[in-house]
Amino acid sequence: MTQDTLGPYLQDCRGLVLGAIEDMVPEDPTYGPPLYDLVLDYPRRQAKALRPALAIATCRALGGQLSQIAPTAAVLELYHSAFLVHDDIEDDSELRRGGPTLHRSHGIPVAINVGDAMLALALEPLLDNVPLIGLSRSLRILRAVARMARLSAEGQALELDWIRRDCWDLQEADYVTMVVRKTAWYTFITPVELGAIVADAPSHTMGLLRQFGQHLGIAFQVQDDVLNLTAAGAYGKEIGGDLWEGKRTLILLHALGQASAEERAQALAVLARPRPGTVGQGPCKTEAGVRLVDGLIRQQGSIEHARAFARDHATQAGALLAQIHDQMPPSVHRRFLEELVDFVIGRAW
Amino acid sequence: MTQDTLGPYLQDCRGLVLGAIEDMVPEDPTYGPPLYDLVLDYPRRQAKALRPALAIATCRALGGQLSQIAPTAAVLELYHSAFLVHDDIEDDSELRRGGPTLHRSHGIPVAINVGDAMLALALEPLLDNVPLIGLSRSLRILRAVARMARLSAEGQALELDWIRRDCWDLQEADYVTMVVRKTAWYTFITPVELGAIVADAPSHTMGLLRQFGQHLGIAFQVQDDVLNLTAAGAYGKEIGGDLWEGKRTLILLHALGQASAEERAQALAVLARPRPGTVGQGPCKTEAGVRLVDGLIRQQGSIEHARAFARDHATQAGALLAQIHDQMPPSVHRRFLEELVDFVIGRAW
Repeated sequence: MTQDTLGPYLQDCRGLVLGAIEDMVPEDPTYGPPLYDLVLDYPRRQAKALRPALAIATCRALGGQLSQIAPTAAVLELYHSAFLVHDDIEDDSELRRGGPTLHRSHGIPVAINVGDAMLALALEPLLDNVPLIGLSRSLRILRAVARMARLSAEGQALELDWIRRDCWDLQEADYVTMVVRKTAWYTFITPVELGAIVADAPSHTMGLLRQFGQHLGIAFQVQDDVLNLTAAGAYGKEIGGDLWEGKRTLILLHALGQASAEERAQALAVLARPRPGTVGQGPCKTEAGVRLVDGLIRQQGSIEHARAFARDHATQAGALLAQIHDQMPPSVHRRFLEELVDFVIGRAW
Repeated sequence: MTQDTLGPYLQDCRGLVLGAIEDMVPEDPTYGPPLYDLVLDYPRRQAKALRPALAIATCRALGGQLSQIAPTAAVLELYHSAFLVHDDIEDDSELRRGGPTLHRSHGIPVAINVGDAMLALALEPLLDNVPLIGLSRSLRILRAVARMARLSAEGQALELDWIRRDCWDLQEADYVTMVVRKTAWYTFITPVELGAIVADAPSHTMGLLRQFGQHLGIAFQVQDDVLNLTAAGAYGKEIGGDLWEGKRTLILLHALGQASAEERAQALAVLARPRPGTVGQGPCKTEAGVRLVDGLIRQQGSIEHARAFARDHATQAGALLAQIHDQMPPSVHRRFLEELVDFVIGRAW
């Protein structure tokens, strides 16, 4: 399928959402220090606006109105930004969306607080939903957002725990559990859910959409892991950053699982070390060490394995979407969702 | 006034609130890593439960029911814990409630995420308010909590900005602006406001209560600063920690304002240095340096000045409380509020 809808659709949503986020930031002339310009920093950098676009497309494909989903869609992007700011500290990432991460340029204390301010600002627009879409749908949205925030923290806790314990004794199922909580819930499942709530979709449709979001979320993250090793520069992160950070990716778990005992031991010795610049004792990862792990990954065909894994989940997502065609008459919005399935596995950025 | 109500009242509220917080934490047998035990760590340490007690006492003194304010009171304590976890990272504090701070024992990444999980968990009980107290009051509570979270982040941003810019050119009014946002809103103003919302207090009473909370909040924080220099060990923090952290306290601003140019320059040279153990270049604060600043404070009578300042604000709080006696018939709850005014300036822990 050609993807002629996807790009312009994302761009439209991005413009809409950025304007809405800028409106959420209070203007208080008596209030001096740099907080709200930092709140707007990540949202203003080049971004896909995938989460709001997904909420908007789902809502409108199901017959809902843009004006009724727009504020909620913007809140999703603000939550995403808050997660990014805090995740970047937790992973000590260097780059985000083509620039230095917030904590690298402003320090950890300021960055933690900026993330907290974003989370605080995200609440009010959801309360303003009541006059817009009524009480029942507003409360369902608030509940869905509360669960999303909780599950994201659970997914993050899983990953941090593995890193902290230097745990590599993990199966693909462990990876999937972590990724569904950490990424799929807030990036796919909740956006389609919120779109469906605003469009008042029947519960059967909602169930299919949640599964759609889950498969797409898994495919998206696995593809993200692939891109991190193959094309990271193009999407604003450091190339191989996941290896430096010691991320448990499907790719790495596959390579370790296929490797000989000796290769595995060598790789784990590299991965156990912190990245350079980390506070603490003991030697850090080196270029040579990271290259060794990268070589093992390529030798085991782990990138191809991950691509196939992503493709499989995207195919399941596509099949689920086809099951609700009767709820979604042909439209640019449905087309966006269809193209997104292909995009997730084919994207290069 | 003797304070025979205060202690037992706080203790009752604490038991109630801790049980409610434990109930907020999901039990998921499939979910492994340490997240929710860490969420419960700070709440389970010795604490006053001041914020929930204030909400409960205000509500009941105004004729409201315990069952209707209890979940909201527990949410206040959970927010407080989240703020403490993140603040402790931002200030790099060593001790909290008699034990090591969460980030010192589990690392910054885990601690950031635990705070985020607390903020996520705090939302659901506020949604469960709807069947308990109706839509209108539930939404007012959600709005008040959203504003509280936003203003707390603003206050924190002010303080972090001063520290980051090594800014000491501050007046008492600057300190008060910061403290009202950072501490008074979530510790006093919002708790009494939430109690009054649940009790359906008239708007005139609400206005007086907000002012009451503001004055009490200022008095509380100034007294907290005093305790940090005089009795910190007794309340679970390190003695003089504010000096090591370079906190802008009323005490320090007074001492710097009274000092000779030479003394001021000497003190600022000490205060500009980071505390030992901080990552970065340049020399750190020393025991001798901190003792020099401490000596200046004592020489200028700044602790006495701060005590008088706190007493003045507490007196104003007491006068405001007296103005709503007609809304509050004599009760143990009103007595708690009255004793709290004295406690705030007289407390030794």
